[in-house]
Amino acid sequence: MDNENTLRRLKTVEGHLRGVIRMVEEDAYCIDVIRQIQAIDAALNKVSTQILENHLNSCVITAVQGNDKKERQRVLKEITEVFAMSNKV
Amino acid sequence: MDNENTLRRLKTVEGHLRGVIRMVEEDAYCIDVIRQIQAIDAALNKVSTQILENHLNSCVITAVQGNDKKERQRVLKEITEVFAMSNKV
Amino acid sequence: MDNENTLRRLKTVEGHLRGVIRMVEEDAYCIDVIRQIQAIDAALNKVSTQILENHLNSCVITAVQGNDKKERQRVLKEITEVFAMSNKV
Amino acid sequence: MDNENTLRRLKTVEGHLRGVIRMVEEDAYCIDVIRQIQAIDAALNKVSTQILENHLNSCVITAVQGNDKKERQRVLKEITEVFAMSNKV
Repeated sequence: MDNENTLRRLKTVEGHLRGVIRMVEEDAYCIDVIRQIQAIDAALNKVSTQILENHLNSCVITAVQGNDKKERQRVLKEITEVFAMSNKV
Repeated sequence: MDNENTLRRLKTVEGHLRGVIRMVEEDAYCIDVIRQIQAIDAALNKVSTQILENHLNSCVITAVQGNDKKERQRVLKEITEVFAMSNKV
Repeated sequence: MDNENTLRRLKTVEGHLRGVIRMVEEDAYCIDVIRQIQAIDAALNKVSTQILENHLNSCVITAVQGNDKKERQRVLKEITEVFAMSNKV
Repeated sequence: MDNENTLRRLKTVEGHLRGVIRMVEEDAYCIDVIRQIQAIDAALNKVSTQILENHLNSCVITAVQGNDKKERQRVLKEITEVFAMSNKV
């Protein structure tokens, strides 16, 4: 996957999360903390989407074009599973 | 797609939604209405997941194994888009 | 609650859902169906938010200003519960 | 708010996120990374719910029982806003 871009985004999220921890330590207003956590959620969703896009354009193409039917089914099933989960978190 | 199963589920959701409309007409307790709407949301997410699964195992396989590179990219881009949206609704 | 506005929105969603059922009956493209279901999800979320807003400004105020501590706790617990669920659907 | 419990949970999430960053650095399988990010999302949602619960049982009670109508409206509006956003992330 496009590791550098993904890593950069995840480290930004890590910094954001550390900021939220500091807010809680300094007894910030509850709603402000919730809003920052929601912003982190949104940023993580974008990272997941980017990783999925890379995955579709590499592993998924390889598996679907390959001759191993079981592997193809496995790879497509995983896409369905992360989609199902994305509706829940 | 597996239309019959999808149709059956969507018609169940339609019945559920009509029940919620009746609840509001009869002035039901707000929180009970919200909970029923959340149950409908969850049911719709399951329908979407089922449709996506069928789509991956038909159109996506055909497009990825085909020779039209643009069509392949279009089909994979759509998967990314509905995944991104599923994180938001 | 503000029944008329809520009812109007729910009936719009019902019409939208019937349109999706027709799309499936007419064998529409899977991704188009998923997108319409996601639009219905988003509309239902707006209805829930509107109902919660009305609930906060009526029942919740009454319960929190009232003398029944148990009732107050019950009403506030319900808010937490629908918030927790809203993160999952 | 109940800072200690919230802080402990957020620091667990921070450790989890650092683990995900290591996974990406070590070129882990895309789908495994997405699943871990979804687990972090779920954990963050639980933290938000806990913070909201504390907020309802402290600031919201104080504001709703107080005499400042504007402050009461502000506090209730914030609940609606974080609920609306929770449906989107």
